[in-house]
Amino acid sequence: MDGKELKEITSRDVDFAQWYTDICKKAELIDYSSVKGCMIIRPYGYAIWENIQKELDRRFKETGHENVYMPMFISESLLQKEKDHVEGFAPEVAWVTQGGNEKLPEKLCVRPTSETLFCEHYANIVKSYRDLPKLYNQWCSVVRWEKTTRPFLRSREFLWQEGHTVHATSEEAKEETLKMLNIYADFCEEILAIPVVKGEKTEKERFAGAESTYTIEALMYNGIALQSGTSHYFGNGFAKAFNMKFMDADNKEKYMFQTSWGMSTRIIGALIMTHSDDHGLVLPPNIAPIKVTIIPIGKNNTEILDKSYDIARNLKLEGITCNVDNSEKTPGFRFAEAEMRGIPIRIEIGPRDLENNRCILVRRDTLEKIEVSLDNIIEEVIKLLLEIQNSLYLRAKIRRDDMTKSVLTIEEMKALSERENGFIKAYWCGDRACEDKIKEETGITSRCIPFDEDNQDGKCCVCGKDAKHFVYWGKQY
Amino acid sequence: MDGKELKEITSRDVDFAQWYTDICKKAELIDYSSVKGCMIIRPYGYAIWENIQKELDRRFKETGHENVYMPMFISESLLQKEKDHVEGFAPEVAWVTQGGNEKLPEKLCVRPTSETLFCEHYANIVKSYRDLPKLYNQWCSVVRWEKTTRPFLRSREFLWQEGHTVHATSEEAKEETLKMLNIYADFCEEILAIPVVKGEKTEKERFAGAESTYTIEALMYNGIALQSGTSHYFGNGFAKAFNMKFMDADNKEKYMFQTSWGMSTRIIGALIMTHSDDHGLVLPPNIAPIKVTIIPIGKNNTEILDKSYDIARNLKLEGITCNVDNSEKTPGFRFAEAEMRGIPIRIEIGPRDLENNRCILVRRDTLEKIEVSLDNIIEEVIKLLLEIQNSLYLRAKIRRDDMTKSVLTIEEMKALSERENGFIKAYWCGDRACEDKIKEETGITSRCIPFDEDNQDGKCCVCGKDAKHFVYWGKQY
Repeated sequence: MDGKELKEITSRDVDFAQWYTDICKKAELIDYSSVKGCMIIRPYGYAIWENIQKELDRRFKETGHENVYMPMFISESLLQKEKDHVEGFAPEVAWVTQGGNEKLPEKLCVRPTSETLFCEHYANIVKSYRDLPKLYNQWCSVVRWEKTTRPFLRSREFLWQEGHTVHATSEEAKEETLKMLNIYADFCEEILAIPVVKGEKTEKERFAGAESTYTIEALMYNGIALQSGTSHYFGNGFAKAFNMKFMDADNKEKYMFQTSWGMSTRIIGALIMTHSDDHGLVLPPNIAPIKVTIIPIGKNNTEILDKSYDIARNLKLEGITCNVDNSEKTPGFRFAEAEMRGIPIRIEIGPRDLENNRCILVRRDTLEKIEVSLDNIIEEVIKLLLEIQNSLYLRAKIRRDDMTKSVLTIEEMKALSERENGFIKAYWCGDRACEDKIKEETGITSRCIPFDEDNQDGKCCVCGKDAKHFVYWGKQY
Repeated sequence: MDGKELKEITSRDVDFAQWYTDICKKAELIDYSSVKGCMIIRPYGYAIWENIQKELDRRFKETGHENVYMPMFISESLLQKEKDHVEGFAPEVAWVTQGGNEKLPEKLCVRPTSETLFCEHYANIVKSYRDLPKLYNQWCSVVRWEKTTRPFLRSREFLWQEGHTVHATSEEAKEETLKMLNIYADFCEEILAIPVVKGEKTEKERFAGAESTYTIEALMYNGIALQSGTSHYFGNGFAKAFNMKFMDADNKEKYMFQTSWGMSTRIIGALIMTHSDDHGLVLPPNIAPIKVTIIPIGKNNTEILDKSYDIARNLKLEGITCNVDNSEKTPGFRFAEAEMRGIPIRIEIGPRDLENNRCILVRRDTLEKIEVSLDNIIEEVIKLLLEIQNSLYLRAKIRRDDMTKSVLTIEEMKALSERENGFIKAYWCGDRACEDKIKEETGITSRCIPFDEDNQDGKCCVCGKDAKHFVYWGKQY
């Protein structure tokens, strides 16, 4: 094999969906199991998730959050306590009806999200304003019984983190909601090199039971939007349903104010669809499990091998994860494999290179080859990793901006959305009827009301009345 | 409150079971939820689990293992593929029979363990001897529908890691099985300060479907044994049931050899029942989320506060996790709280101490108070943490050894086990009938055939025939 077989993936410009699945399989991120709609996350995919966890968990802990673990089962009566919430989730949960050989007296659902469990717990442990705030998070898997599934993007079981906090005042809870949205946004931009639009969901698109839902929206290579993380402010709606009261400093009993926020393995889908290409996965250095792979060329050349391991050792001393691919495969195959796995830099060293005290760095993002002296290889790698990280972000941002267009009427919106994918900005009066009409006529939905609304002086693209917002619309995953 | 209320826990010598539950609740390790048999792991309990994960995960990765994630559901037909395995687990699994509003065509169990899923995956991805070994691990929760449950020790859902590996030869698989058992044993002794007996389970006590099961057995304060980690060698029994073949270097198709090994949140139960006392939890420094707590005494004394934060800063520079408890509670309450939470060292500083350039260190394990100069506080803390760690291990080992007794006949065994709890060493011929008889007559079971059998020249304590093993017996959790 010379790597051609490995490289045989569908082109992303020919069939984006097939290209995506090819990458997931060929980069060995996932495999299918016989359990319909559930996927296996393979070591390389899981290593990416572990890096995501490490980065997010550090940010959560730095902002005072603590991890806990709640049961995976929710009884039917507990799930039903908050009316909007159960309506949103009941149609898509998996039900356990039998334990061992016995039928259960009450059926239990496998958690689709854990608001109800946290509410019950907080009602139990919080007595006084001195016990507030409680800032909890949990890393776990959740289940939603989806009809059609796709790796990372939509599966019946997926991994995520869900933060759930309670506060003495609504101001503090609102502040928490936005703080966590900003953490998600910074994480996406700084670590995953994915530019995002921060904003609020319209009422129609809100989380079941929330007073406000905030979101970060990313645009994939094909112009389809992906909701990448959400943060919800609940007011005290759940608090009232679950009797979550505390004694305040003024000696009055009050209801707590609540938030929740989550990011899931879905973000790996966003990572793939933002940066990868027809050669395989492309990973930003800040999230790549292996940042550099060193490929010695020439059989049994101990000098080259020694030099390769020497470079690897020095890179590791700088905290740069790397490996030496000294397998029996041909150089061509090893190059293709490194490309398929999206390793940000590949270092090639052959006999002639060693003679001339140099080696070749190959950037995964551009596939550009750079000759560098072995004398300053470590500095060059460090510099190049930074450049790749920045360049991936910028390229994604320019593409996103290019694919963001404004329209004034629903007719223009319809014509544009039929011609191409992307974000469409359009004025909206705030009425649900106009939002419904857009969905009906164009098939696209509101993504968010952006925080940095540049211009609010317009007329609603549907009814022509004074607009309240300049909204992002688009097709979505 | 002066801490008396906090300290009101049952004495471990009066009612061990109630004492254990009191510790779990009052040290805020767990809480109950309305979902019967499932527990909530609270921040302090989860922080202990995170430390356990970190230590084990590092050891797994250093020995070449990779983390993956398998689906939480197993279809009934997949679970049934290996006969012994399904017989062992089917009676205690939870069944999902409904997804959304529809009845499922085939019911799915929530994984009680994931051998079947790993087998299916390995059959799928391993083609050649070059693909072997595969050394996978996963961190997840599993469900076993227990009738009676107790925090950490036995709950319907619990957290664990399960390693699953496949190898080209049985020798390599056997080596892996023992390597992982040794990792568990070292971890328990070095980090948790829990002495363990390493050995093999008798056929009667083996894991469903295994050829050999190895175990580490610990003895709790009350003399009851707790199986603390197990490692199984499967031969190629599952490989045959799941058609897991590979092309070997000699161009012959062969079945893979397989292992699995696991450690769960149960080990937190062992940690509690080995070291804790009537004042609350006692944690060995190597696993404690907070190693040192500093308690400034005297209201609004900024000099004392400054000194406290100064010490905290310097401890953190040495990698020692610590906090300053400057809450409004009385010193007595704060002392009791630190004791209840098992923080290894508490530092008390009052106005008179500061005047004399000294402070008091209080060891949680012995409650001994030690006056030290503020000039060498950091060195003293480092030294004392080491001493506490060693001393906890030694004290547990001496107790375990004291509670380990040998008998020659089943009558002696019966009399001893009625008189006191502990490990009982007795000769055994290896026959299942004699093992069954011991269970019947004395109620105790075999814990393990130890690796370091000191004396095999005896007669079976039941039938009087030549013994094969000098076995550990005991009551168990």
